[in-house]
Amino acid sequence: MRALRGQAAHRGQGGLSLARIALDVMGGDHAPGATVAGALLALETFGETHTIQLVGREGVVRETLAAALAGEFARLRDAAARFEIIDAPEVIEMDDKPSVAIRGKPNSSMGVGLRLQPEGKSDAFVSAGNTGAQMAASVFALRLHEGLKRPAISTLLPTAGEPIVFLDSGANVDCDAAELVSFARVGAVYAEDILGRTNPSIGLLSVGEEPEKGNAAVKEAHALLQAAGLNFQGNVEGRDLPQGRSDRGPLDVVVCDGFVGNVVLKTFEAMPKLLGALLLPTGVTKEQLQQGLAKLDYATYGGAPLLGVKGISIICHGKSSPRAIKNAIGVAIRAHESGMIAHIGQRLATNA
Amino acid sequence: MRALRGQAAHRGQGGLSLARIALDVMGGDHAPGATVAGALLALETFGETHTIQLVGREGVVRETLAAALAGEFARLRDAAARFEIIDAPEVIEMDDKPSVAIRGKPNSSMGVGLRLQPEGKSDAFVSAGNTGAQMAASVFALRLHEGLKRPAISTLLPTAGEPIVFLDSGANVDCDAAELVSFARVGAVYAEDILGRTNPSIGLLSVGEEPEKGNAAVKEAHALLQAAGLNFQGNVEGRDLPQGRSDRGPLDVVVCDGFVGNVVLKTFEAMPKLLGALLLPTGVTKEQLQQGLAKLDYATYGGAPLLGVKGISIICHGKSSPRAIKNAIGVAIRAHESGMIAHIGQRLATNA
Repeated sequence: MRALRGQAAHRGQGGLSLARIALDVMGGDHAPGATVAGALLALETFGETHTIQLVGREGVVRETLAAALAGEFARLRDAAARFEIIDAPEVIEMDDKPSVAIRGKPNSSMGVGLRLQPEGKSDAFVSAGNTGAQMAASVFALRLHEGLKRPAISTLLPTAGEPIVFLDSGANVDCDAAELVSFARVGAVYAEDILGRTNPSIGLLSVGEEPEKGNAAVKEAHALLQAAGLNFQGNVEGRDLPQGRSDRGPLDVVVCDGFVGNVVLKTFEAMPKLLGALLLPTGVTKEQLQQGLAKLDYATYGGAPLLGVKGISIICHGKSSPRAIKNAIGVAIRAHESGMIAHIGQRLATNA
Repeated sequence: MRALRGQAAHRGQGGLSLARIALDVMGGDHAPGATVAGALLALETFGETHTIQLVGREGVVRETLAAALAGEFARLRDAAARFEIIDAPEVIEMDDKPSVAIRGKPNSSMGVGLRLQPEGKSDAFVSAGNTGAQMAASVFALRLHEGLKRPAISTLLPTAGEPIVFLDSGANVDCDAAELVSFARVGAVYAEDILGRTNPSIGLLSVGEEPEKGNAAVKEAHALLQAAGLNFQGNVEGRDLPQGRSDRGPLDVVVCDGFVGNVVLKTFEAMPKLLGALLLPTGVTKEQLQQGLAKLDYATYGGAPLLGVKGISIICHGKSSPRAIKNAIGVAIRAHESGMIAHIGQRLATNA
């Protein structure tokens, strides 16, 4: 395993930005087995051009990796030399308070993994660990863009059409109108840079199409968004989400506060189970459900970037499978290659 | 068609309260055709023991009824004599402001139909018209129970298990903690009286199970609900809704503010369309989908009572089909027979 490379080393010969992605090996319900397996899948997919940095208790990382290479991943025994292993002696538990990530355990895999970015030793951080802790540690290590109060979690919501960039999905439970507008700005950059959408259309989640519908924050945000220089489509409703479009056209970004966003997202995630209960008795097979509902599987979309911090921090579902971890690493690579963080900074500075 | 009966006339021989249900013939996207057809279906189902009162422009009502009886409903030509027809010269449009229902058009089908209750001439009101207008007119005509600021719309949310009483689903977009507690109290009575649930379990919709998770109103409501003398199960999450249960057991009632409730409800309603798009390509048939997803069809549940007013006012979906109208009339009958409004008053007075 090679040592940490300096900042200058992460550009390829053609000038293409090769990414160094730090993965929190210790985070997630199925860590470290699932995270190491995810890293190995990512190594296979992206490892020729990008570097994956395994951050965690060095002994645990090496042991888990050795076990994987002795079994399911024997084919990657040579390739695994391309991993960087970075020791982080402390571990953040799923029920630790967010503040622990900053003050209590500064040398956790989250603390160490995130600090690599301001130190110029890494380009992105990926974790399936304690979300509150990751948010706090990300803001602490990476800092917020000017003018923002808090970051937002930006999830891809599966729809009948293309996925929607849906934010905030849980970072901010009480949001004011200005925050909702910030979400629209950073979400638009995400849609452009990661999904390749041009002039992304923005919807504001509310309880009716009309501008006067909504709670106090939403009504104020509606007025602000009309003057924000974005492709603002107006209010959208719950019924528009599964369609991925309102009566006024397809949606690229939908903004809401993190309370509503979290409830909607978790409701979506639980739908396949309900559908099994309803459809299996009609003769629909498990295979049909699995195939048809694959689009609803969060693992397909990998991870949700924490937007608003001056660096890349990808939040994965606590239950992440190896495939979900691999896809999250893919999102991190695209975020780095597209220059998303710089674009967000520019967008916020221009429109503030 | 017989004339309006007085208050004394609405008790059957065995002392059973026969219900007089006023239907707003003019309200709804498909009115008056669908509302009259719904009334005819209800007449067939409930008409032997209960009275259906058709409220609307008398000419329109008689004409629509005559057309239905000349065609699809010819079998009910004699039975239709059991309808009461009550003239209401004004009509509330779907885009009228709520205040119009009270001040601008006092003699609309909503105004007239709701006033029958305080006048002792009717036991319940059912409408698929303008929801905001119905709420305003209901509060004006029926008055709120002591101590309440606003009523709540209580919808049945379909789940993999039994339906959940879900409120508020859209009446109150900004709620404080005390209102969330009121919703729990009135929702519990609904679950007991209409669904026959004993000691109904109450969940508070939030972004995590722990009491400290949620926005400001939800965190305060959690503390109040623990001391409210209800069967409070604690916080529940979006993922628990499609299951109809949390890790702590089945849910009878889930409370949330009307903004979140409306978004979740409309998301649920739109799911079948998304599922069609995802599952039909796998060979699942339209018939299987229709059969399996019937449980998700709001028409099955008919109408959503406006809880908190001292009378029965059932809100139907604007797009209500005849079957939905018939089922809403069924809900109105059960609400009357069970004495739900008196029970709500007692519950609020005891626990205030």
